[in-house]
Amino acid sequence: MSDNTTSTAYSALTTELQQIAILGSCGSLVSWDEQTCLPPRGTEFRAEQLSLLAGLRHERATSKKLADMIAAAEDELGSALDDDTVQAANVREARRDFSKATRLPQRLVEEITRATSHAHLAWVNARKASSFSQFLPSLKKVIHLKQEEASALRVADQSLYDALLDNYEPYASSAEIEKVFAALREQLVPLVKEISASSVKAPISILSRFYPIDQQKRFCEMASAAVGFDMTSGRLDVSAHPFCSGIAPGDCRMTTRYEERHFNSAFFGVLHETGHGLYEQGLIRESFGMPCGETVSLGIHESQSRMWENFVGRSLSFWTHFYPQAQQHFPHPLGDVNISQFYSAINDIRPTFIRVEADEVTYNLHIMLRFELEQAMMSGDLPAEDIPAAWNKKIKDYLGIKVPSDAMGCLQDVHWSAGLIGYFPTYALGNMYAAQLFQQAATDLGDLDRQFENGDFKPLLEWLRSNIHHHGRRYSAAQLIERITKKPLSHQPLIDHLRNKLAPLYDLSQT
Amino acid sequence: MSDNTTSTAYSALTTELQQIAILGSCGSLVSWDEQTCLPPRGTEFRAEQLSLLAGLRHERATSKKLADMIAAAEDELGSALDDDTVQAANVREARRDFSKATRLPQRLVEEITRATSHAHLAWVNARKASSFSQFLPSLKKVIHLKQEEASALRVADQSLYDALLDNYEPYASSAEIEKVFAALREQLVPLVKEISASSVKAPISILSRFYPIDQQKRFCEMASAAVGFDMTSGRLDVSAHPFCSGIAPGDCRMTTRYEERHFNSAFFGVLHETGHGLYEQGLIRESFGMPCGETVSLGIHESQSRMWENFVGRSLSFWTHFYPQAQQHFPHPLGDVNISQFYSAINDIRPTFIRVEADEVTYNLHIMLRFELEQAMMSGDLPAEDIPAAWNKKIKDYLGIKVPSDAMGCLQDVHWSAGLIGYFPTYALGNMYAAQLFQQAATDLGDLDRQFENGDFKPLLEWLRSNIHHHGRRYSAAQLIERITKKPLSHQPLIDHLRNKLAPLYDLSQT
Repeated sequence: MSDNTTSTAYSALTTELQQIAILGSCGSLVSWDEQTCLPPRGTEFRAEQLSLLAGLRHERATSKKLADMIAAAEDELGSALDDDTVQAANVREARRDFSKATRLPQRLVEEITRATSHAHLAWVNARKASSFSQFLPSLKKVIHLKQEEASALRVADQSLYDALLDNYEPYASSAEIEKVFAALREQLVPLVKEISASSVKAPISILSRFYPIDQQKRFCEMASAAVGFDMTSGRLDVSAHPFCSGIAPGDCRMTTRYEERHFNSAFFGVLHETGHGLYEQGLIRESFGMPCGETVSLGIHESQSRMWENFVGRSLSFWTHFYPQAQQHFPHPLGDVNISQFYSAINDIRPTFIRVEADEVTYNLHIMLRFELEQAMMSGDLPAEDIPAAWNKKIKDYLGIKVPSDAMGCLQDVHWSAGLIGYFPTYALGNMYAAQLFQQAATDLGDLDRQFENGDFKPLLEWLRSNIHHHGRRYSAAQLIERITKKPLSHQPLIDHLRNKLAPLYDLSQT
Repeated sequence: MSDNTTSTAYSALTTELQQIAILGSCGSLVSWDEQTCLPPRGTEFRAEQLSLLAGLRHERATSKKLADMIAAAEDELGSALDDDTVQAANVREARRDFSKATRLPQRLVEEITRATSHAHLAWVNARKASSFSQFLPSLKKVIHLKQEEASALRVADQSLYDALLDNYEPYASSAEIEKVFAALREQLVPLVKEISASSVKAPISILSRFYPIDQQKRFCEMASAAVGFDMTSGRLDVSAHPFCSGIAPGDCRMTTRYEERHFNSAFFGVLHETGHGLYEQGLIRESFGMPCGETVSLGIHESQSRMWENFVGRSLSFWTHFYPQAQQHFPHPLGDVNISQFYSAINDIRPTFIRVEADEVTYNLHIMLRFELEQAMMSGDLPAEDIPAAWNKKIKDYLGIKVPSDAMGCLQDVHWSAGLIGYFPTYALGNMYAAQLFQQAATDLGDLDRQFENGDFKPLLEWLRSNIHHHGRRYSAAQLIERITKKPLSHQPLIDHLRNKLAPLYDLSQT
């Protein structure tokens, strides 16, 4: 870090923040274990463990001791508190975190942890049985507790939803998001229509041939390491819902799910989580626990995963490098498939039911629907009982398809069972951030395609490290985008990226 | 539990004890993860996590609040505190735990946790390189800290070693152990000589044929479940040193290590850990966190693992049931081997280097050597530098063989790296407890061999559950043995067991 200091109040604060982060990291590990390793009958006490750890962490993150330390560091900095330095950002963001955390009663924190731990298991079983009613009681409890959380958190005339949104995308508002989503939707809808009208149909059946799981595992691990994920500082495991957890420096864990007859699910899932993992692994180790050693927002986090999954991983240049290796790993399903067919198949655009398997275009419509539903859940306009019907109607309206079961509909995502309401919009924000950042990287780094063709992903990774990862939370998402691209967030780079890629694939007229 | 109560002071105490146990269970999980899952570069912060959790647990287990709760429960019980009830035992043992814990400064607890976390990695690497000097600095630090711990813990004229022994075998003393070890040694030494002089040689080479690891894994899991381990409340994983950790009710985790050319290592290792696991799974769920929901001592714990590994798992009747399945799992290595040859091979007795792979007879001599060395380490009579030479000399004296490398000698065990000094004697105590208990079970349950031949392990498991597991720490190890067998601990049942089994196998004269 550039801002070294020996000052007492500031370094006392950073030590305490690191201890709190270490306690938090224990909770992250216990939670990772719950989703990857926990024996079924261990659930009851796992909920108690998570609840206790969350309570202890919250207690320390809201203590008088920490308050005094922040105040002392603020005094010490004086007018330098508004400067553009790591030190000032650490103290300002620590104050913001403290102020948010103290608005939440500890009882509520523990209750939410316990309720979501139980709700997670209920969701797993309900999804298996495709039975929303099995999940309903747990979901109602979660919604109720999150409304309580939002009431405690909100400032001034903030809506309940915006108070939760701030947990994932600090400094954002749903009004702003609606504006940029609307601009995006205005361009996406005609694009989907044009593609549907195209006579070109991607040969997607090649992706549901038989891909042995052992080989998928090897190919995924190879590709993840090739783009830069450090397997001596991380792991790849299996869970029902893929995720990436940056537990502590040197310990970043991704999960995926393998399906024998679905190449995309694990491979692009792993590239996606790799993007998250590269961000976590790119944080400054010495800043662990301090705001400038933490990720900016989930939107920026998602921009990293989306960039590696879609902008890199679904490009022709990426596969120019990797396709020969893919054919070696999968001689049976891919032996008779040329790279053009494969490239076309992995860029198939069509309305489908499952968000995590949706294409780059329709994905954003999946997000808009969830964003709208959960705003209504929080305001009370949508009772939990009515979620399946509302979900199915919106899928019909936006994508023109009829949801066959709750498992394929409103039970598909882990988020609500985990209390992650306000989280979904960050996915589509991530797509837009990714497009705008990738456009800038191409300007700064020259011929990215040529680099990818040569298997050289280092320039892009280094660019991301120095422009984004190394800053931590020194700048907000909006500031970061402006600093790097010299423009505020816009839907246009994403539309440009999609049109440029898809026009030749689908014989679209360029507009 | 028989002793229900609605009294306030007592139930407040049990609630607090359970919270402390839940915090402890988080530490157990983080520690399990360190040995099974942790990426190499995560070690630094893992040490911080373990240290922080241990510190928090210690803080709560030594708090004024807990002291007041124990005192209130004692007052409430009054003269009933000396009764033979669960409630009285819970309060008495809570007082004992508290008194021990408050003799340890928190700084020391955290230092030991941090030092042993680092020492564990040093040991893993040193063993790999067979280089004691790589491990020496960490070991010195551990010994020094354990001496400090013992000084803080010891009462009256207790030796440093006895103060540590009490951590693993409460109420025991090294003087008593020396007495029963001496009586055992007096009988074992001639037995080993007789066997060595026998012309019978077990066909052990069949056990180092090629046993595919996948098949070993399946066979181990099958056998473990068949004798009663509940896989919905537990797991089996891989680690450098096999162990079993009862993390929380419904979550008991065993590990093993598989070697392609060594059948015994994984199979009998898993049966051993299964014995530990059955004990953990047999504890009363509702008593979690209270002394009567905890295991008595490591010696009693080991009696359970040894019983399933040796008294059950190395019996002819066990294999009468399982051998056909073994041949199905391993058609290549076992197709041409009859059950008598196999039974003879798994009961091979001969001096070897590795404790965990030693036979039922010589194993106890491995323990006596460690018991003597670590007493000398603690008293200061044996500087850490001299451990390899002292080890190698004793192996020569007791077993007549020359240690070829530190990896095969004093670096083979995980214990000292983990600070587990005083732990080893409990293994041989476990063998003697197991023999005495098994003899009693046969008296109470009739023809155990007939039951094993029929694959019926339930009567023995139920007997262990009701006589041992369900009591938790209601009785001390010595009390438990006397209650069940009506006799104090003796070396004789173990000698009887070994002579009865080995005399026909090695054509020994019965004495």
